[in-house]
Amino acid sequence: MRILIDMDDVLADTSLKILNETNKRLGTNFTREQLNTSPEIYKEYYEKYSTVRGMLWEKGFFADIPLIQDAQEVVQKLHAKHEIFIVSAATEFPLSMDEKLEWLDKYFPYIGWSHTVFCGHKWMIKADYIIDDHEKNLINFEGKGLLFNATHNQHVKEFTRVHSWKEIETILL
Amino acid sequence: MRILIDMDDVLADTSLKILNETNKRLGTNFTREQLNTSPEIYKEYYEKYSTVRGMLWEKGFFADIPLIQDAQEVVQKLHAKHEIFIVSAATEFPLSMDEKLEWLDKYFPYIGWSHTVFCGHKWMIKADYIIDDHEKNLINFEGKGLLFNATHNQHVKEFTRVHSWKEIETILL
Repeated sequence: MRILIDMDDVLADTSLKILNETNKRLGTNFTREQLNTSPEIYKEYYEKYSTVRGMLWEKGFFADIPLIQDAQEVVQKLHAKHEIFIVSAATEFPLSMDEKLEWLDKYFPYIGWSHTVFCGHKWMIKADYIIDDHEKNLINFEGKGLLFNATHNQHVKEFTRVHSWKEIETILL
Repeated sequence: MRILIDMDDVLADTSLKILNETNKRLGTNFTREQLNTSPEIYKEYYEKYSTVRGMLWEKGFFADIPLIQDAQEVVQKLHAKHEIFIVSAATEFPLSMDEKLEWLDKYFPYIGWSHTVFCGHKWMIKADYIIDDHEKNLINFEGKGLLFNATHNQHVKEFTRVHSWKEIETILL
């Protein structure tokens, strides 16, 4: 079985880095709990974040993203049984790609450049499953989509939502 | 119809840059004509080139590759009628990817990051055609493969060989 795994907000807690950097750059004190429980505060945060969004294109931004809990353990188990490709919509951020390869080598060294894909769209990649936090990457995908739960995808209803790597383990292993 | 187009030695004359750089770094005078007509000289060249192959990982190497003849004109015509993805096995060369995006923006500005893919393998990408100079990228590919003629693929017999972008134009348009 072939499984495509997204990076940002699936393997890497990119939203947390963005939250911390937004707070740091704007002197704000938004917390993840606030964003997850109050749509009004999330809206206010998102407007403020939009003013510093250019940081995503800065060199170094993607070098030190924290890991999502249990991702290392479960991906290694999946890799032992299935064909795994890491598929990240990273071509929008030209300086991110060598940082993302280094990040993967650090935490998932058995994947390697040969099974890493950086792209814009993902619909033309053929696989049995995709694990992704963005609806746009599940729509038109030929296999089954697992929507990795995130603050920004709460409105999406059509796909199987997974809240953790432990939950993915029970579905795919 | 969806068409995947490789970069190195299909859109970009990477072999020419490698030949010129090898000559420059080793003080040799190999010519493309020699490599195309004498297997012995090609073998000698390839052994020498192997000693400086590390240059492919240097920053800047992929920034200034010359264009392949007629690629701009024919790709633009293909793009007007078909869904085009540029698919380059570039993840092996981490520093090449932002240079490749800039190169594409310069010569093929209508493609953009959304239709650019950097990967190791290509077999899992679904399309009607792939235009590529490497046999490994045509084997296991689900659609039809067009092998772009190159010195290094003369031994390959199984695929439709194309010698120029004008020839591709007559096949696909």
